[in-house]
Amino acid sequence: MKMEKKRIIVDAFGGDNAPSEILKGCRMAADELGVQILLTGSAEKIRAAAAQNQVDISDFEIIDCPDVITMEDEATDIMRAKKESSMAVGLRALAEGRGDAFASAGNSGAIVVGATLIVKRIKGVKRVAFAPLMPKTGGFFMLCDGGANNECRPEMLAQFGLMGSVYMQKVMGIARPRVGLANVGTEPHKGGELQQAAHGLLSAERRIHFVGNVEAREIPYDAADVVVCDGFTGNMLLKMYEGVALALIDQFKLVFTKNLKNKLAAAVVYKDMKAFKKQFDYNEYGGAPILGCSKPVFKVHGSAKATTLKSAIALCAKYAESNIIGEIAAAVSTQAAEEQV
Amino acid sequence: MKMEKKRIIVDAFGGDNAPSEILKGCRMAADELGVQILLTGSAEKIRAAAAQNQVDISDFEIIDCPDVITMEDEATDIMRAKKESSMAVGLRALAEGRGDAFASAGNSGAIVVGATLIVKRIKGVKRVAFAPLMPKTGGFFMLCDGGANNECRPEMLAQFGLMGSVYMQKVMGIARPRVGLANVGTEPHKGGELQQAAHGLLSAERRIHFVGNVEAREIPYDAADVVVCDGFTGNMLLKMYEGVALALIDQFKLVFTKNLKNKLAAAVVYKDMKAFKKQFDYNEYGGAPILGCSKPVFKVHGSAKATTLKSAIALCAKYAESNIIGEIAAAVSTQAAEEQV
Repeated sequence: MKMEKKRIIVDAFGGDNAPSEILKGCRMAADELGVQILLTGSAEKIRAAAAQNQVDISDFEIIDCPDVITMEDEATDIMRAKKESSMAVGLRALAEGRGDAFASAGNSGAIVVGATLIVKRIKGVKRVAFAPLMPKTGGFFMLCDGGANNECRPEMLAQFGLMGSVYMQKVMGIARPRVGLANVGTEPHKGGELQQAAHGLLSAERRIHFVGNVEAREIPYDAADVVVCDGFTGNMLLKMYEGVALALIDQFKLVFTKNLKNKLAAAVVYKDMKAFKKQFDYNEYGGAPILGCSKPVFKVHGSAKATTLKSAIALCAKYAESNIIGEIAAAVSTQAAEEQV
Repeated sequence: MKMEKKRIIVDAFGGDNAPSEILKGCRMAADELGVQILLTGSAEKIRAAAAQNQVDISDFEIIDCPDVITMEDEATDIMRAKKESSMAVGLRALAEGRGDAFASAGNSGAIVVGATLIVKRIKGVKRVAFAPLMPKTGGFFMLCDGGANNECRPEMLAQFGLMGSVYMQKVMGIARPRVGLANVGTEPHKGGELQQAAHGLLSAERRIHFVGNVEAREIPYDAADVVVCDGFTGNMLLKMYEGVALALIDQFKLVFTKNLKNKLAAAVVYKDMKAFKKQFDYNEYGGAPILGCSKPVFKVHGSAKATTLKSAIALCAKYAESNIIGEIAAAVSTQAAEEQV
């Protein structure tokens, strides 16, 4: 179906490859997806980079601001020292309704803080979740929470399951997402107090297809479409996944470059190996929505190149077009109502 | 240096390949390491399996007992329904001084409960830790706690760091083990209350070389020799490590068996790939000591074959020969004394 042009606000200075790859990705998105791009950041620097990289940005709007949040900055600086950063200004523009979604490849912690304090949570949502999409054998899964909240209460985990399920259905097109709780064993009584209580709440949540506890070992093997956990655990799972995948692929490379005969063997399987690598590249899925925020905020991978940014913008447009936020709002309000009973 | 023959008590019925592979591994250990083997389990079944597999067990002692703990049994059954299991009987024999160390490839939870309640903790040790050795680029690291204690207090994490450091130095021969705290960021203030408090205690612990917080992504890349965390986090890290490694290697196999030319390429790199796989095989290091127990108890990988069991028995002998337990006892007592001050 054709929609009116979605307006995507993009932080021109977020991530390792900003602004050049950001600009290129925005150009691709504008051309291929028919979205309107609003860039935030130093207009002067943006124009210079566009000229240097021969990217036509004549049809982009620019919200000029001087500052940038770095990876070294504290997340809370977005509310104070870095109020005029491209990220803070972009989030305010979203809050003010100047765009339909905001995307940044910058400091994750700052995006979570800004999404919560500038754009605000959906009424009834206890915490926003950082919800990255990760590869698994034969597809991808969502980790929710992937690191926004180190310490969680059981009700938060129940909401993470609900919000993740809605997103996977509406944006990723999974008909009946399986929601699992990351735990040390499959039996309901396993884990600590948090997991035991969360298991009860998730089991009682009729809006989702809860498949029970999932062990970490099964997660890369299609254990569930949405893996629910507290943010500390999510960070451990996410980063260990990345670390092991990178370490193994590094070792593969050493084998294939060891000597001439191995190099020749590598040449034979090169294409298949590339496809294999692509399957386990956690950059493929663009990044992570900030779920529970009252408007679509999307964290793009810090290492994103133009094509990754383009796919992230495509997801942002879908996020904005679908009525996810309305559905989450309705679900959590009835959830809250049921708690009263 | 030559020692008197160490007496290693082995659960003949623990693990996926019991008793046949257990018996073969014990035979190898007795011949190559000069240890005295005491087997626990049904004497009748042990003799039958030995005869069937043509393993000479004439010099082994057998402590006859009828029962076996399965993976389905509750950990606490070792104290009740399964008091006469090969694992419970072996742990009692260790407690009674009939052997110098106990090894089992059976139910991990039951071993932890049995080590705590039958063999007992070292005076001053708050919790025993399940401390598996895991591969990393260019070696191995210890995860402590790898799953014995879902919920921990900061003082427990400080003890895990201390115990892991002593073990890595005395048994694994690492001169100055680097101890790291698994956390979501490297700065001391990162993580939840547990991590923040544990960081303070580990920093103040002069007996260890604390290198601060380590992110999960760096763990497979030699971030530390001992990675300290609560048992829930440890289980997540351990199982995600295993899951990703297995999933990648599975996918890799698919590439190499896809068609004839790929199969030929695979044949070329076969030996190097095997060496590579060996490097990332978490079975290589035999298993996990139960640290903080008053006598050496060792959990062998459930999937252990004869050679893995043999290397586990070698580690048990070293565990018994070295004065680790005395050192841990001395360290925790002074640690406790310092807390008083």
